[in-house]
Amino acid sequence: MASDTEGASRRGRGGRSAKRAQRDAARSVAPAYLTRRIGYVDLLREEELDRIVHHSDRILAEVGIEFRGDPEALALWKGTAAEIDGERVRFPKGMLDRIIAENVQPVFTQHARNPARSVQIGGDHTVFVPAYGPPFVRDLEGGRRYASLKDFENFVKLAYMTPHLHHSGGTICEPVEIPVNKRHLDMVYAHMRWSDKPFMGSVTAPERAQDTVEMCKVLFGADFVDQNCVVTNLININSPLVFDNVMSSALRVYAAANQCCIVTPFILGGAMGPVTIAAALAQAHAEARVGIALTQLIRPGAPVIYGNFFSSLSLKTGAPTFGMPEPALSYLAIGQLARRIGVPLRCGGSLTASKVADFQAAQESVDSLVPAVQSGVNFVLHAAGWLEGGLVMGYEKFVLDADRLGMMARYLEGIDLDDNGFGMDAFAEVGPGNHFLGCAHTMANFETAYINPPLTDSESFEQWHDGGEKDANMRAHERWKAMLDSYVPPEIDPDRDAALQEFISKRKESMPDAWH
Amino acid sequence: MASDTEGASRRGRGGRSAKRAQRDAARSVAPAYLTRRIGYVDLLREEELDRIVHHSDRILAEVGIEFRGDPEALALWKGTAAEIDGERVRFPKGMLDRIIAENVQPVFTQHARNPARSVQIGGDHTVFVPAYGPPFVRDLEGGRRYASLKDFENFVKLAYMTPHLHHSGGTICEPVEIPVNKRHLDMVYAHMRWSDKPFMGSVTAPERAQDTVEMCKVLFGADFVDQNCVVTNLININSPLVFDNVMSSALRVYAAANQCCIVTPFILGGAMGPVTIAAALAQAHAEARVGIALTQLIRPGAPVIYGNFFSSLSLKTGAPTFGMPEPALSYLAIGQLARRIGVPLRCGGSLTASKVADFQAAQESVDSLVPAVQSGVNFVLHAAGWLEGGLVMGYEKFVLDADRLGMMARYLEGIDLDDNGFGMDAFAEVGPGNHFLGCAHTMANFETAYINPPLTDSESFEQWHDGGEKDANMRAHERWKAMLDSYVPPEIDPDRDAALQEFISKRKESMPDAWH
Repeated sequence: MASDTEGASRRGRGGRSAKRAQRDAARSVAPAYLTRRIGYVDLLREEELDRIVHHSDRILAEVGIEFRGDPEALALWKGTAAEIDGERVRFPKGMLDRIIAENVQPVFTQHARNPARSVQIGGDHTVFVPAYGPPFVRDLEGGRRYASLKDFENFVKLAYMTPHLHHSGGTICEPVEIPVNKRHLDMVYAHMRWSDKPFMGSVTAPERAQDTVEMCKVLFGADFVDQNCVVTNLININSPLVFDNVMSSALRVYAAANQCCIVTPFILGGAMGPVTIAAALAQAHAEARVGIALTQLIRPGAPVIYGNFFSSLSLKTGAPTFGMPEPALSYLAIGQLARRIGVPLRCGGSLTASKVADFQAAQESVDSLVPAVQSGVNFVLHAAGWLEGGLVMGYEKFVLDADRLGMMARYLEGIDLDDNGFGMDAFAEVGPGNHFLGCAHTMANFETAYINPPLTDSESFEQWHDGGEKDANMRAHERWKAMLDSYVPPEIDPDRDAALQEFISKRKESMPDAWH
Repeated sequence: MASDTEGASRRGRGGRSAKRAQRDAARSVAPAYLTRRIGYVDLLREEELDRIVHHSDRILAEVGIEFRGDPEALALWKGTAAEIDGERVRFPKGMLDRIIAENVQPVFTQHARNPARSVQIGGDHTVFVPAYGPPFVRDLEGGRRYASLKDFENFVKLAYMTPHLHHSGGTICEPVEIPVNKRHLDMVYAHMRWSDKPFMGSVTAPERAQDTVEMCKVLFGADFVDQNCVVTNLININSPLVFDNVMSSALRVYAAANQCCIVTPFILGGAMGPVTIAAALAQAHAEARVGIALTQLIRPGAPVIYGNFFSSLSLKTGAPTFGMPEPALSYLAIGQLARRIGVPLRCGGSLTASKVADFQAAQESVDSLVPAVQSGVNFVLHAAGWLEGGLVMGYEKFVLDADRLGMMARYLEGIDLDDNGFGMDAFAEVGPGNHFLGCAHTMANFETAYINPPLTDSESFEQWHDGGEKDANMRAHERWKAMLDSYVPPEIDPDRDAALQEFISKRKESMPDAWH
């Protein structure tokens, strides 16, 4: 199976020392998720964090949050010390933090149908997840076009084959040829059938969330689903300070089913939040805590993730910008805030406003991913494929980003400071002025010392010229095509597969097509 | 003057708050250098650093360093507790650290001929410097070709006009049409004449170092040069563990003249050092301390910089790779080691093995620059223009990197946590569900809240399409051409200019042309 071969090779090369490599050689697949061996980057001092929390608490107590069109959510808050005023809810200081501290799981397992692919979410663990939401796709040959189910399946397959993606994602792209009220069934099925990695569910209507839960019960068994997290779900808040009934009712469905909500303030600075970073942080921390606490009122201990999405704004175009230093700084601060309340964190991954996988795309993507990883992020949504501010899923961008994820995985392993790492024998053997290329220490460590991302060119100019002067984009184009050519689907129990297909047919038959 | 206009505009947009912006508006030029307001990223714990220093001390005491063909350097060590064995010198533990602690300036000023451009090197300050050394140039129109003096002058002009480059650099590219033994005169003159930023001198032979010092005396006055640093100079060590006589004699010229040496272990892991990171760190710390201490034996208090150059290796090609996680980790550790001994630090900047300014080039450049900046780097060589592992200076790459430097400058400013930053009035004014676009807080902060790098595209797809679907490279091509078109040279005292030209003529007349 292509993914296993790749995985073994990655581990072999990416390990930290000969000892490590031997250990790894015993493993036949890439690790299901990452565990960091380096510290967090703590940008702010404790008293600076206190100041953010203080202003966040003031927003909650003085301005409050609105739950629009969702009396059930309001009813849940009525059982607490919160002050209800129509649809507006104000929260006394400390109340949300108590609910969170008493109930939220700091680390939980999201189960995959292949148990070897199950991931730990929270603590020192990191999970890389494909991009989510684009209505368009782009590749070097076909250019930019509306996404289809075929594209969706292609990306599920590519994510399945990519050792550095630990998760199949959710709406990798919108299969726009399928009616809006039915496409969630095809998307969830594609994740279940063409991959065996964990995946995300539908959140665009409560009944679609319920369909997702029902399909999970078919795949995993109803009892298992009730007791274990098998699906993660992106709940975007209508920032500023509003939960609309679509999102809050999807949240209620998933929390009640013991499934994970990623409660995400969605702040484009200057539009859905104030234009300054500190204010956006205070707002995000207010909104996130409300959503997180709400999941715990519905079902104490339900898995939940603290979401983060904050972008800056262009003075030139008024459009959001990505990979800029202001969001980078905010990511680091959000990481500290999430750790303070002990909730697993989601940050954006390889984000960019660029239309194509060019210099800008890489710069912005790296500048988004690095602070996310340094912040201690646990769930990296949009880790691969994002282009054009999330409007486009790029084929070449996907495999280029995936290589980059392998680099971050190595980064999180830190530096080996054991005796082999220091190689004192090598200095004695080689001595001043000679090279280390053939010495015993080099021979023993050569294959595991440095990662070698498949798409990285380090050829001589002449080799590169003779090979057709291919830039990263052209190399990436060849790579994703070759990957799809060699795809072999994971096995699935035929009875469960049939049951899933039957569920989907019945649900589709029960509804007229809807296109918006 | 184009550079001033750009500078003012950068400050205006890049400031942290309205208050800050007002302060900045009073300034007519960009800051001459950066001062960080955020902390360092300390990757290793103190006991882990101890372990590196321990192994580094063992290399110095057990293996030692060779000074080849330089009896004057050996004579300097004879006056210390070092043990001399032929050309090999072994250093007892603690000796170098004492010399360094007692003599090295932790922060010094490199003076520019325009005092407003003088830079602080060391402490919390950072200076971005163009790439150094490429024999080739590349641009979108002309492709890859040998560099010329015209190219050299172009890059001096571009660096002069770029607010985010604080330094004119040194051998920005090799003017290969000029004899090897004469070209340093033209290069140093170009820095002096076409820019008024600080610059670097020649190190390829001791007499060329002396020419540089003499030209500095013409420009700045001999007494001033004797008492102040006016030129920085790149002294690469012949790693592993060798100082050759060319480099050590150039070092002696500059240190004796009270000018700055950047003492740089040059380690391609697995070739000029062991293949593991910890060993390379121990070796680098050994080699750097020897060179740093040597400058202080020659002239106590002479300005000196701890250099760092470490690259990983490709398993596929055997060539060095850049922007990989292993060097990133090593940069962070080197920053801690340099701070421990209180010596200003140089790290590599925007490094890449890529042939063109593509996705790989940006990824690798960012992944080199971020850990450098996070490590507390003071002098960032190769901050703009590097391609192809240093063989090529790229025109488009240069302006793309320059934009990125502006982002890092903003990053180093951190987050404003004053009352304006928290914008509590804005929440009261706007309330849940409304947008902040027109509110008073946004209006007051809009122009200064987020940086807007000139080359970053955030247009809609339709605008971008109508504009010709220009990628970052194409936009960069237009930009550097427009910059050169609008270049206006800084004024220079005609007498000094004439004296410089006379010095150069006489020196050139005194030598036959040499081509290697």
